[in-house]
Amino acid sequence: MSFFFYPKSVAVFGSFKRGAIAYEILRNIVEGGFEGRIIPVSLKGETVEVAGKTFKIRERLDEPVDVAIIAVPANIVPALIDEIGPLIRGAVVISAGFSEVGNIELERELVENAKKHGVRIIGPNCAGIFGVHGKFFGSFEVRVKPGGLALISQSGAFGGAALAMGNEGGVGFSAFVSYGNAADLNESDFLEYFADDENTKAIALYIEGVKDGKRFMKALSYAASKKPVIVLKAGKSASGAKAAASHTGSLAGSYEIYRAVFRQAGAIEVEEMEELFDAAKAFEMYPKTGKRVAVITNSGGPGVLATDKLEKLGLEMAKLREETVQKLRSFLPPQCSVKNPIDLIADADYERYRRTIETVCRDENVDSLLVICVPPIFIPSEEIAKAVIDAECNKPLIVNFMAGELVRNGVKLLEEKGIKNFPTPERAAKALKWLSLR
Amino acid sequence: MSFFFYPKSVAVFGSFKRGAIAYEILRNIVEGGFEGRIIPVSLKGETVEVAGKTFKIRERLDEPVDVAIIAVPANIVPALIDEIGPLIRGAVVISAGFSEVGNIELERELVENAKKHGVRIIGPNCAGIFGVHGKFFGSFEVRVKPGGLALISQSGAFGGAALAMGNEGGVGFSAFVSYGNAADLNESDFLEYFADDENTKAIALYIEGVKDGKRFMKALSYAASKKPVIVLKAGKSASGAKAAASHTGSLAGSYEIYRAVFRQAGAIEVEEMEELFDAAKAFEMYPKTGKRVAVITNSGGPGVLATDKLEKLGLEMAKLREETVQKLRSFLPPQCSVKNPIDLIADADYERYRRTIETVCRDENVDSLLVICVPPIFIPSEEIAKAVIDAECNKPLIVNFMAGELVRNGVKLLEEKGIKNFPTPERAAKALKWLSLR
Repeated sequence: MSFFFYPKSVAVFGSFKRGAIAYEILRNIVEGGFEGRIIPVSLKGETVEVAGKTFKIRERLDEPVDVAIIAVPANIVPALIDEIGPLIRGAVVISAGFSEVGNIELERELVENAKKHGVRIIGPNCAGIFGVHGKFFGSFEVRVKPGGLALISQSGAFGGAALAMGNEGGVGFSAFVSYGNAADLNESDFLEYFADDENTKAIALYIEGVKDGKRFMKALSYAASKKPVIVLKAGKSASGAKAAASHTGSLAGSYEIYRAVFRQAGAIEVEEMEELFDAAKAFEMYPKTGKRVAVITNSGGPGVLATDKLEKLGLEMAKLREETVQKLRSFLPPQCSVKNPIDLIADADYERYRRTIETVCRDENVDSLLVICVPPIFIPSEEIAKAVIDAECNKPLIVNFMAGELVRNGVKLLEEKGIKNFPTPERAAKALKWLSLR
Repeated sequence: MSFFFYPKSVAVFGSFKRGAIAYEILRNIVEGGFEGRIIPVSLKGETVEVAGKTFKIRERLDEPVDVAIIAVPANIVPALIDEIGPLIRGAVVISAGFSEVGNIELERELVENAKKHGVRIIGPNCAGIFGVHGKFFGSFEVRVKPGGLALISQSGAFGGAALAMGNEGGVGFSAFVSYGNAADLNESDFLEYFADDENTKAIALYIEGVKDGKRFMKALSYAASKKPVIVLKAGKSASGAKAAASHTGSLAGSYEIYRAVFRQAGAIEVEEMEELFDAAKAFEMYPKTGKRVAVITNSGGPGVLATDKLEKLGLEMAKLREETVQKLRSFLPPQCSVKNPIDLIADADYERYRRTIETVCRDENVDSLLVICVPPIFIPSEEIAKAVIDAECNKPLIVNFMAGELVRNGVKLLEEKGIKNFPTPERAAKALKWLSLR
């Protein structure tokens, strides 16, 4: 299936008027730096200009391409697939107007025509796909920064919002697929594919319901055996399930059954959209961790909040070895607390943070570190960011720098080094919880 | 106590070198547009320049002022209070080095000297105070936009971080007080004061522990009878309580007792820092609401997530009256779902949103509305924001616009009209939960 996410050539079908779906997809592909061949196809228009480049619009596809992206009226899609079938390997059908509005026959025709030519279909009624490391942005959604998360979304709008929000929140993406009506390829196919995709470190899945439960269980188990799979299930409540049924036609089924499946397969279920991003950020950095956490902070209050949350989540405050405590005592000012949470107090500088992180990291009672910084006005957040970056530590380290604009530069510096910031002590604690579930 | 938050004159004691605490506080006061007299006092320096204005530094205070802000070494504070006592009404003692490091005698002397002159003390060991509507920013923390929230924080660092983050997240503030060691005035005094402050619509309280439980119960009940009081209690877990003890010397006590007190007093307890902001935003807009919510969305997935969360939180999906359903059917396209959640589908424009909001708002089975928008590329978020603004609706309406940069302009427009955005469906649902608890 990798021709979908790392294609060498792509044809886009639809209208190339500014603002039209096909135009927006073409623009995303060109602006995203796709290095393969790009062929716009439409009966209307001679040329289309995108990002300073001019493309000749062809009336029909007349050479082989890996992927066709189709945004023409639904009723002509099956015939188009039949026509271009011999030239393409896969098609992403953006067009809506199939089974989701009752046109079941039209959808069946689409699938049959594709099968005849051995063509695989994503969609119809979907928002498209991204293969971020192949610089292939085959969707009208906002382009994202490269990273380790593959996002599989049954809902196109959820997917689009999640891409934009995750991107701004520090998530890096390997791929995105909105699979719409799943007439051919579905969530199970994508789970299996991304399980083996080497650019994907973690998979996030938004589902309302699945059609083939057995297949899903198998695919989810396989994927979760290879890498973290984060699942957000919508339609959990009675009213939610009813709404999901009218949205994607999913039989949401009993949530208890889904929950059991997720647990048995080893997937990590989150309850909220925000948690999906936070878990993804954690897993982009680290594959897993143990339960014993050391908290290092320069301000008592946030340290207490982190401690509360860690214990509530079933994690443990690591009991530091006597050796570690003595070592900390040897270089920390007497006002500092060397018990976990370790309070370096407000004037903690580069050296105090760096040495503390290194000392605590070497303690065999510690599985992971949660480092909090609320910079006082006289210490720039960059200084503490550098300490985190420079500290030699081979254990999972989650950071929570906070105070709005006061930490902007520090957070930026951390992110340049691949260290993602969590905005509150509680969200940082939850990140460690997800990691401990692997 | 209003002379603290709406003073007519202020003296600042400390070093006026750039970056020093007293300098930073002076800068905040001047840049914040304080319109009363400002008197810097120090033995060192002739003048100090701040924001283009030059102030003569006086060697001693020689005229009456409402408030003295003191950032001189701890050991000389009691004598200073005795000296200026006849000239001031209250003092905010920023200086650290009192009971929190064992100097109990020094703190007692400070309080006794203040009492002798009828002077009230905030602190010592605190981050200062803001009276935002009096344009008085008597702290080194980041200045904030005016609004309805009074933030009372036992932890200075928590307070500072919360101001900065709340400010960026859309919270408006009426006041801030970090009360440190609470040698004189404490959380109960501030609760009672802000209960009667007309610029304060809601009170947020961060506490680790209180010394006088009876007094606290009384003050909290009084405040909660006047306006929403949101409480974030730190030191809930065993390790957290221990950490709090070493941080503010609080006997955190059994969390179960605190919980019972919060509930009995009618306060609204939140579990996370982020929830504190979200609850504050909700209460800045609305005093309360009922349990029956109507969800209006242009994208199915997020609508389902909101529905799930509302039901999980014990709210109800409003059952729309037949009249409402028929009215909606009369102007909505047939693909739209007129059951709650009401799905206006992706191409919903200004008119569709506005009319739907107005129709649903008139339904007597509906207590409040949750309006979700994930703008498709061809409809600018401003258009939907305008629909929300223009819709005639006299019931609480919580919005969740999402998709990063795609909604930036819409969110800005909403905020200019005092409509605060909640970044995910789940956080919007929680906002309604807090409102329903009043």
